[in-house]
Amino acid sequence: MNTSELLAELKAKTGEVIDLRAAVSVLHWDQEVFMPPKAAPARGRQLATLSSLAHRMFTSEAMGGLLDTLTERLDELAPDDRILVDETSYDYAKATKVPAEFVEKFAEEQSKAYEAWTRARKESDFKTFQPHLDTIVELLRQKAEYLGYEDSPYDALLDEYERDMTAAQVRGIFTPLAEEQSNIIAKIAERGAQGDFGWVDQEYDEAAQLAFTEQVLRDMGYDFDAGRQDKSVHPFTINFDLHDVRVTTRVDPREPFSALTGSIHEGGHALYEQGFAPHDQRTVLAEAISLGIHESQSRMWENMIGRSLPFWQHYHAAFLATHAPRLDGRSAEDLFRAVNRVEPSLIRVEADECTYNLHVVLRFEIEVALIEGTLKVSEVPEAWNAKMKQYLGLDVPDDARGCLQDIHWSHGSMGYFPTYALGNLYAAQLFEQIESDLPALWSSVGAGEFAPLLGWLRANVHRVGRRMLPTQLIAHVTGREPEAAPFLNYLKKKYGGIYGVAL
Amino acid sequence: MNTSELLAELKAKTGEVIDLRAAVSVLHWDQEVFMPPKAAPARGRQLATLSSLAHRMFTSEAMGGLLDTLTERLDELAPDDRILVDETSYDYAKATKVPAEFVEKFAEEQSKAYEAWTRARKESDFKTFQPHLDTIVELLRQKAEYLGYEDSPYDALLDEYERDMTAAQVRGIFTPLAEEQSNIIAKIAERGAQGDFGWVDQEYDEAAQLAFTEQVLRDMGYDFDAGRQDKSVHPFTINFDLHDVRVTTRVDPREPFSALTGSIHEGGHALYEQGFAPHDQRTVLAEAISLGIHESQSRMWENMIGRSLPFWQHYHAAFLATHAPRLDGRSAEDLFRAVNRVEPSLIRVEADECTYNLHVVLRFEIEVALIEGTLKVSEVPEAWNAKMKQYLGLDVPDDARGCLQDIHWSHGSMGYFPTYALGNLYAAQLFEQIESDLPALWSSVGAGEFAPLLGWLRANVHRVGRRMLPTQLIAHVTGREPEAAPFLNYLKKKYGGIYGVAL
Repeated sequence: MNTSELLAELKAKTGEVIDLRAAVSVLHWDQEVFMPPKAAPARGRQLATLSSLAHRMFTSEAMGGLLDTLTERLDELAPDDRILVDETSYDYAKATKVPAEFVEKFAEEQSKAYEAWTRARKESDFKTFQPHLDTIVELLRQKAEYLGYEDSPYDALLDEYERDMTAAQVRGIFTPLAEEQSNIIAKIAERGAQGDFGWVDQEYDEAAQLAFTEQVLRDMGYDFDAGRQDKSVHPFTINFDLHDVRVTTRVDPREPFSALTGSIHEGGHALYEQGFAPHDQRTVLAEAISLGIHESQSRMWENMIGRSLPFWQHYHAAFLATHAPRLDGRSAEDLFRAVNRVEPSLIRVEADECTYNLHVVLRFEIEVALIEGTLKVSEVPEAWNAKMKQYLGLDVPDDARGCLQDIHWSHGSMGYFPTYALGNLYAAQLFEQIESDLPALWSSVGAGEFAPLLGWLRANVHRVGRRMLPTQLIAHVTGREPEAAPFLNYLKKKYGGIYGVAL
Repeated sequence: MNTSELLAELKAKTGEVIDLRAAVSVLHWDQEVFMPPKAAPARGRQLATLSSLAHRMFTSEAMGGLLDTLTERLDELAPDDRILVDETSYDYAKATKVPAEFVEKFAEEQSKAYEAWTRARKESDFKTFQPHLDTIVELLRQKAEYLGYEDSPYDALLDEYERDMTAAQVRGIFTPLAEEQSNIIAKIAERGAQGDFGWVDQEYDEAAQLAFTEQVLRDMGYDFDAGRQDKSVHPFTINFDLHDVRVTTRVDPREPFSALTGSIHEGGHALYEQGFAPHDQRTVLAEAISLGIHESQSRMWENMIGRSLPFWQHYHAAFLATHAPRLDGRSAEDLFRAVNRVEPSLIRVEADECTYNLHVVLRFEIEVALIEGTLKVSEVPEAWNAKMKQYLGLDVPDDARGCLQDIHWSHGSMGYFPTYALGNLYAAQLFEQIESDLPALWSSVGAGEFAPLLGWLRANVHRVGRRMLPTQLIAHVTGREPEAAPFLNYLKKKYGGIYGVAL
């Protein structure tokens, strides 16, 4: 076969794998959104069959041979096809480096660990989870050896979620970040609460809340002809194609903001996936380059836009009308302040903008120490509680509200947490550039016009797909490697204003 | 490998195929119920990839070898496993008899024919469809040669939907059936309408209609923990496992009966699939033996139960309350008569119990003549219109309301239509037996108790799965081969009563 025939063959073969993975995603989506309870065992088998089939097809020797031959002939390919071959080869290497028996063993231990974690959290007893976490850490260290790394074994794990990022690089950013954020929240705590938000606690109609989230999603540019919103226990975004990107949300009947900010967050993720280049459809290029970049999109829309004063000035009247008469008399500024309350909390998923990253830094430091072997699993609760005191000034009353609160470790995921904070930092760094590139940004947001912002993100981030690594992308767009300064400046300005204090 | 290892291997291999087919079904379900419009092209590719993969896996040489070896060792197997090997071998033979190139060619022509039929129906112009139907008939005759048959090539096609049934056998039942049913409707027409049903035409709330259908489904024994009901353009039942059997319905805002009878119909299908034997799960034995048997379940619940007077006596008060004050003052008998109006119509899907089979006989006769080569495609409209006059006494004003009304031929399906009428006949024949086995049947229906009926169907039909062929099953349960008499007796008794005339 000549080179273009080989390339066509590669696209056909990977296309089949991508179709299978899409089916896996449809089955997952259905499981979270609509599946009846008794279907769970059958669905588990169906997912296992399809996933393993997709894996077998992708890691076949034929696929390897095709990639090898094409890699030898890279200079005969157009630039886009070269990247396609490179990125597919990267995925292939990842998928074949870890032996199948290890993957199976890992899945088994994972499932036991998850079961134990569920019990442990319920009983708030770390001891129940400890032996399983021990095994998970041991397996992750082994996995790092399979994957390979230069400096820290943690680098190999981090690379699965944030390509080419290292523990050292993250530490270099996180350490000063944590120090500064701790200072900020200390000053805010000293200043004390600015206003009483008891008025928030009322009964809000679910259908009205959902309709409002859909209107905002539509305004943001989310295409409901290429997606839909449903309800689920944990909100998520999932795609089966760039023309089928779905989001979910959940509604709190006593609080009108969480469904909305949740929908905006998922909408940010979804706009990224609806924005992949159409000519990349059904290839690995129409994928997020990293979880951090993905999170930068959701966080930017949720926090920088959805928690901004101009946003609330625009939606103020409609929001009051939607929930009338409950919020009658509340100003745009009241709503803005209500969605920007700062309060150090024990729980990451409830954390506000000023404290969120601290939850992440704490987990990152513990993960690195576990993987590098400088912390024993038995010491995790102690280390956790000490860091909660150090960063957030809080005493942890029990493990359920401490080191047992997150599902990630029980799923065998380490290296995932840092991407949440990196997402915040990328968002701020990109947003600084956006404010400079689009001088009329805030007047358009204040008029409910999000097309300029979306247009910028489409051109500079979404359509790039997997063509640039995260650090490359940030550097390409902002002229600087990822750093904490833009995020800290953003926090100081916004919350300095809200709390009337120099941060 | 020893025999039990081979059997385990067969179950594992077919289990994977069944999982893949389940995924195909989930993708289809989503497409009809929730998928956003722009996703259509990607979904088409995903379905094609998964279907072809399932086909490749099922028709692999390894599968064939496994089945051959197990077939040689049938006497070493337990009875259930023997049937499993036999039935899987039957499917394998079907799937491998037709060459892949033919399947591809057929799919291509099918898709062109469907497109042409859509246009032809819109413009009510058979000529647009004619050359495509010519090709379809030609291909179906070729397919019959691949599949093999003894008497008529139509037998090979019929067997795909109604196992082991032949054109001669069906003709033997249908010819006298059509004659008697024509007489019945002539007598009813002579007698004239019994009552004015203008009161039906009002506005009925959609949510209230849906809630009522769900209550009735629940009462019937449909397990919502192993299924769900959604809305779709065309109602259907689909399963991804015997613990995940879903139905859809559609709501007419000007008519409160069609959503209900539609849901009961699909519920009848769904109870069959929820009722397969749990130990047959993830094998081909947990499947309907034929479309006719499947339809017998939907028709029995829809017509014999859902259009019975005791049913309406039980639901009368709740139905009036649901739609209050619209139906205030209407008696159970009024509702019963309203859902049992007889009116010869041009359209099969709108046909009542007295006329439905005639629509089917007409199509069956045309199909057989086309496949056996005694009728040319160009003569279809003329033949259709003549039979409409003969059987239903109606003049066909145009092809859209005549031979272009159904999708089936454009999909390349011939041999499918007879199963609708066979379903009606099987239902009546089974029901005669049920009434004899369960003397308290009607008093329990009148009390909204369907458990005795469902229990009978579970034991005698549902749990059988593919263990008996349709004719075997009917003969086993009723002591007689399929026949028209029970259905005709049922019609005469019921409609003789309603119209106050000896039929």
